[in-house]
Amino acid sequence: MTDSLRQAALDYHALPTPGKLSVEVTTPAQTQEDLSLAYSPGVAEPVREIAKDPEAAYLYTGKGNLVAVISNGSAILGLGNLGPLASKPVMEGKSLLFKRFAGINSVDIEVDSPSPERFIQTVSDIANTFGGINLEDIKAPECFHIEEALIERCQVPVFHDDQHGTAIVTVAGMLNALEIQGKKIGEVRMVCLGAGAAATACCKLMLAAGAKKEQITMLDSRGVIHSGRTDINAYKGEWARDTEMRTLDDAIEGADVFLGVSGPDLLSAEQLKRMAPRPVVFACSNPNPEIAPELAHSVRDDLIMATGRSDYPNQVNNVLCFPFIFRGALDVRAARINEEMKLAAIEAIRQIAHQPVPDSVRAGYGGVELNFGPDYILPKPTDPRLLPEVAAAVARAAVDSGAARLPYPEHYPLEAL
Amino acid sequence: MTDSLRQAALDYHALPTPGKLSVEVTTPAQTQEDLSLAYSPGVAEPVREIAKDPEAAYLYTGKGNLVAVISNGSAILGLGNLGPLASKPVMEGKSLLFKRFAGINSVDIEVDSPSPERFIQTVSDIANTFGGINLEDIKAPECFHIEEALIERCQVPVFHDDQHGTAIVTVAGMLNALEIQGKKIGEVRMVCLGAGAAATACCKLMLAAGAKKEQITMLDSRGVIHSGRTDINAYKGEWARDTEMRTLDDAIEGADVFLGVSGPDLLSAEQLKRMAPRPVVFACSNPNPEIAPELAHSVRDDLIMATGRSDYPNQVNNVLCFPFIFRGALDVRAARINEEMKLAAIEAIRQIAHQPVPDSVRAGYGGVELNFGPDYILPKPTDPRLLPEVAAAVARAAVDSGAARLPYPEHYPLEAL
Repeated sequence: MTDSLRQAALDYHALPTPGKLSVEVTTPAQTQEDLSLAYSPGVAEPVREIAKDPEAAYLYTGKGNLVAVISNGSAILGLGNLGPLASKPVMEGKSLLFKRFAGINSVDIEVDSPSPERFIQTVSDIANTFGGINLEDIKAPECFHIEEALIERCQVPVFHDDQHGTAIVTVAGMLNALEIQGKKIGEVRMVCLGAGAAATACCKLMLAAGAKKEQITMLDSRGVIHSGRTDINAYKGEWARDTEMRTLDDAIEGADVFLGVSGPDLLSAEQLKRMAPRPVVFACSNPNPEIAPELAHSVRDDLIMATGRSDYPNQVNNVLCFPFIFRGALDVRAARINEEMKLAAIEAIRQIAHQPVPDSVRAGYGGVELNFGPDYILPKPTDPRLLPEVAAAVARAAVDSGAARLPYPEHYPLEAL
Repeated sequence: MTDSLRQAALDYHALPTPGKLSVEVTTPAQTQEDLSLAYSPGVAEPVREIAKDPEAAYLYTGKGNLVAVISNGSAILGLGNLGPLASKPVMEGKSLLFKRFAGINSVDIEVDSPSPERFIQTVSDIANTFGGINLEDIKAPECFHIEEALIERCQVPVFHDDQHGTAIVTVAGMLNALEIQGKKIGEVRMVCLGAGAAATACCKLMLAAGAKKEQITMLDSRGVIHSGRTDINAYKGEWARDTEMRTLDDAIEGADVFLGVSGPDLLSAEQLKRMAPRPVVFACSNPNPEIAPELAHSVRDDLIMATGRSDYPNQVNNVLCFPFIFRGALDVRAARINEEMKLAAIEAIRQIAHQPVPDSVRAGYGGVELNFGPDYILPKPTDPRLLPEVAAAVARAAVDSGAARLPYPEHYPLEAL
């Protein structure tokens, strides 16, 4: 980032008032009469209704359209463990995206708990305030146990976006890329460089989408995760293969897919050359991918490539998913976000890329053609079809899979915001 | 409440959307460029600044103008312990009042912790998300320890409004009533019926304002709190007097002041007749006061009376204080809300009642004259002078007493909202 961009980012956060969000009143609140309904004595009535039936909270309070974005700041973006308070601009940003893309009210909570167990307890003690909980920027491997425990304990959906949001968008893009390359997901050999939260969630969801576990080779910073490794935790252990391969050099030979969720410049041009014909490379390390797109394309012209960056084609961007999966989940009051809902989100996102792009979206990208193909495998974040189509697919899947507590919404399909 | 008022209150909470609040975006968030500042990659810059210096959170996030309204629902209004979720309409209402009266962004958090210690831990673990914490509707005696512990542990101001907000407004009104009655606070005999959070906080603040402890007789549901009682906790024990008085009948004889924070119709006309000349009666049980104003005035014409109700003169309403004491505290980044700040708020509120009322306020009360006197001892909640004058007094007291981390604000006096 240049100095002027840095300053622009700081100014953006400082002006017109510190931060990016405000809380506003949605009901009349001027006169004494207004206030007697908003607060004492009128407020006693909804209190009584909720005391009789907790579901009434969805009718008389904002709970049903309120998502908490919660972090302990232990893995902020790519910046590391800088603590809860330093994560606040990111969490406020996430809340901004919830509102901007799906009309969901969202507040950030930064939790300063000294252990994962206490973090779990703190979050579960406040969880019922909200209609859903989006966990964010919590380091692996603690994040796995934290999410599992919170899903178990909370009565509202809990979703760790760094895992599942990333995985949903990655798999949607991957399926489209494989389609264009003429490959079947059940047959491809995949190398996953990185074994953190996002990497393992992506690989799990690839399995759910049809990939074969024995075709996936995962590597951490010490190399291939194989059955002889004694230095790995149980979460990585799930991915251990019985193989002679030890390094990326070994694993990349003839691979169809490279998924990088690791660090900059870890895939060399030589290694890319040794992949199978018509390879798919998702180099998601941000801001510097595992291989620069210019370099990659200079050595392979049969490549489809995606990155985490908005200034290259095919950005893997969580905002394609999390506002809409929560929108669908909230609208049918889903008790949790299950695999069926994730797969429905994948399919909806992937189908949008197949359809012609609205002029409004094209205009935002300098009028460039965006036709389904090697340089357009995922919708753009500004695509107005995401909200109605992904939310509808998720809500439908929640109803069909039994996760929903309400029927499919009458007011669907939603209008674009 | 009539059925139609009940329905109006429920409709108010259900429409136009469930609840009373929304979260809105205050910065540009339409284009890809906007979003690259609001979120990745731009958001990394304020993260780095806050990691270097935690105070930068006040510059780049909403923390400095954000108050959490937190409850466990153990003493909701006068309705009792209905649990955290049922308290949500009240807490959202409080957040609404923070915004409406002082422009403070506020979110509610309902905490479902099984013990006071765990409540304290949960709240202190999330406290740094906010610029201040307003505790609400937590039952006594737990509320005392909870507030003390949180003040100790949190780096932001913690204020239990049921105690201190009530006490500040009560004492402001009381001082004005005594002035009109020609009595000195250091000389009056006071009976306090009720020994809960509000009652003890009021009595403590009366002492700070000049009352004499040996002139205060406190009663709980079992009668006078005296030094022979063995059935009381330490918080009540502070108020035990070495006296022969056992009942309200004993205590009321010749008393100058009756403060009721108890229940309906507990002060009889006969008892009121036996008070000293020119008595002051604050019958704050809500909605039904300790003695009905009509009855009280029918037996004494030298009386000044206040209640908790908006449909009688002299309403003791916390909204005269809490939005503005937090406004002043936030604006000078006070580390806590100390006695000096509370006394400054009392004096500012009390002085506003001495000054002529703006026409806008009078218009809202049917054009009735509101002149300092027996039927006008406290400002009306809609008085636009409350924000600038109370906030300024509190900020000044915070600076002068050393609680402030910023100088007295250049942008003061604030304009009315």
